[in-house]
Amino acid sequence: MPMKVAVLGSGGGALAVAADMSRHGRATTLADFDDFMSNLEPVAANKGVTVTNDWHGPEIHPVTVAGSIPEALHNANLIVTVVPCFAHDRWVEAIAPHVTAEQTVLFLGEGSGAIVARRAIEQPTVIAEANTLPYLARPTGPGSVTAFRKLGGVLIATLPATPADTAHTTELIEDVWPYATATDTVWNTVLANYNAIDHVAAMIANAGTLQNRSGGMLLWGEGATPAVVNVIETVDNELLGLRRALNSKEPRRYQDFLVAQGFAPDLGPGATLFDTVRASKLVVSYAPTGDAGGLDTRYVTEDVPYALVLASSLGEATGVPTPVVDGLVDIASSMLGRDFRAEGRTLATLGLDGLDTTGLIGFARTGVFP
Amino acid sequence: MPMKVAVLGSGGGALAVAADMSRHGRATTLADFDDFMSNLEPVAANKGVTVTNDWHGPEIHPVTVAGSIPEALHNANLIVTVVPCFAHDRWVEAIAPHVTAEQTVLFLGEGSGAIVARRAIEQPTVIAEANTLPYLARPTGPGSVTAFRKLGGVLIATLPATPADTAHTTELIEDVWPYATATDTVWNTVLANYNAIDHVAAMIANAGTLQNRSGGMLLWGEGATPAVVNVIETVDNELLGLRRALNSKEPRRYQDFLVAQGFAPDLGPGATLFDTVRASKLVVSYAPTGDAGGLDTRYVTEDVPYALVLASSLGEATGVPTPVVDGLVDIASSMLGRDFRAEGRTLATLGLDGLDTTGLIGFARTGVFP
Repeated sequence: MPMKVAVLGSGGGALAVAADMSRHGRATTLADFDDFMSNLEPVAANKGVTVTNDWHGPEIHPVTVAGSIPEALHNANLIVTVVPCFAHDRWVEAIAPHVTAEQTVLFLGEGSGAIVARRAIEQPTVIAEANTLPYLARPTGPGSVTAFRKLGGVLIATLPATPADTAHTTELIEDVWPYATATDTVWNTVLANYNAIDHVAAMIANAGTLQNRSGGMLLWGEGATPAVVNVIETVDNELLGLRRALNSKEPRRYQDFLVAQGFAPDLGPGATLFDTVRASKLVVSYAPTGDAGGLDTRYVTEDVPYALVLASSLGEATGVPTPVVDGLVDIASSMLGRDFRAEGRTLATLGLDGLDTTGLIGFARTGVFP
Repeated sequence: MPMKVAVLGSGGGALAVAADMSRHGRATTLADFDDFMSNLEPVAANKGVTVTNDWHGPEIHPVTVAGSIPEALHNANLIVTVVPCFAHDRWVEAIAPHVTAEQTVLFLGEGSGAIVARRAIEQPTVIAEANTLPYLARPTGPGSVTAFRKLGGVLIATLPATPADTAHTTELIEDVWPYATATDTVWNTVLANYNAIDHVAAMIANAGTLQNRSGGMLLWGEGATPAVVNVIETVDNELLGLRRALNSKEPRRYQDFLVAQGFAPDLGPGATLFDTVRASKLVVSYAPTGDAGGLDTRYVTEDVPYALVLASSLGEATGVPTPVVDGLVDIASSMLGRDFRAEGRTLATLGLDGLDTTGLIGFARTGVFP
């Protein structure tokens, strides 16, 4: 009997994951909440997901669409949620009553979903998360997606960070994503977050143009000037400082990840981050369009409250300074007239209030809440 | 014998002040340090400053160029320094040995020069400062300047803030700048700082474009989008919070000052700050050009370390939160690879370290350092 995989979500990332799981022989089922099910109707009609990428034209990979979320979870060996952070709570609430001790739940995208899930779903159910989606994926039409595989830099952590949970998770996915590698703890999947590092700095430092321009903006191709890249590098430094305080064994910088993921060539030891960004695939990437003239997009509304606010909260708890992360949070809040610190994810909202550095390191190892 | 005025500096602002003082019957002398004296050679050659403005063509107003700084100060009733903040210390050191008890020293431009001078020059010499230059002035050629008078919103404070010092200062200048009004203390001239409020937010939120563009950028005409204006408004709110904590009786907001200065029409009570900015003279104002592709200009390198860093320091001392001011300081530091907090002006560098709100209010009233 083939391995059974439930993919939760219906955006470009979820479609890419479902197609690739199917391509690797899994019996794959997609599911979403009723309010998003219309996204999956074309998949149901085509009995599969259509994928194009840079080495082949459209291919349909067979994928089932479940009639309900519990139906998708039934007997699945692996449950992959590919949803924005602001949907974590809703998803965890929906799946917790149905998940069994034999299943593995994996969160893809911005980190910290595993912490939300661990609070609601008891061990021995294995809970894991990645720091990033294993693809660069964009929807291209009804039920179809364009997806490019990353080459590396996809980190997988389990909560608790036990060798058994990590080995089990890796075994379930290594043929699909051989470029996904185990990392020490969820603090790495939370903090080695390229979106938090490069999206927000680029959006804030180009806010005027993003709102002025009626056409698209090459967010990095135009926007990543030396000064803007300096801010990206400073955010990277601040998050690296947090990773070090939390005992991370992952030494790589944002620049290293651009190369590891296959986004940029390795320009050698003398290359600055600016050189690497300008030689990367980022330069042809357009800023997402949104409300509030281009600023009200997940590059701000997810990455600020769920990634940078959490990093700022970790900075407070560990005593690691995060002034530029803090500044981006407060300026983004001002720009959109929202209070991202109040809306966002913090140690308090995760149930980890009061933990210091030692407590946070211990939590990632044991998965036991204070 | 006509009133004698020494104007220190040789930029557009100094030339405008000298010309206007001359036009109002003062015997006016310009002086600068040797390393800037070449700026004044055309004034010496023409025996005056050439001014154009929006109601007449070029006019030459007679102004003398002094052979040395002490010569300019000699017998001057009023000494006006029109220099960037980063030159305050150098100027105070140069003039302190020569200033007499009968003279009045007035600092124009970004505030806090009076505090620097008060430390070195004993009472009863009167020391005063404004929150802004009384003109919008730009050099237009050798020894010539274009200058538009503001209509109001120019605040003058003395240190100490005594009725006698304030009355004396007002008397010396009221025929030249009838639109300059006495304000309660130097905390108002420090904090009612439009440059700090609108320059930095606009520069940071348009950093990508400023560095990318080979031609000029309409800093507000293009750059002041709704999100960017929100940041300007938040900086204004934070500085207003500081002014209130320091007992200011000046209730006006940045929007009110745009109208009071004659920069924008009064659009009535329903007008948003965005409406007012977009109806103002700011929309035709180009960003200054500088090194580092347009960012290394006084709009960042003066306004951040001398205005926002000082505001941040006042926030710490008074317990008033200044998160967006702080964020702009740290992001600007990151962008230019400098540590503006370390370079800049703080209560510590002013000799006011350790004062709390009550102490700061008392200092402005007495001029006595702790």
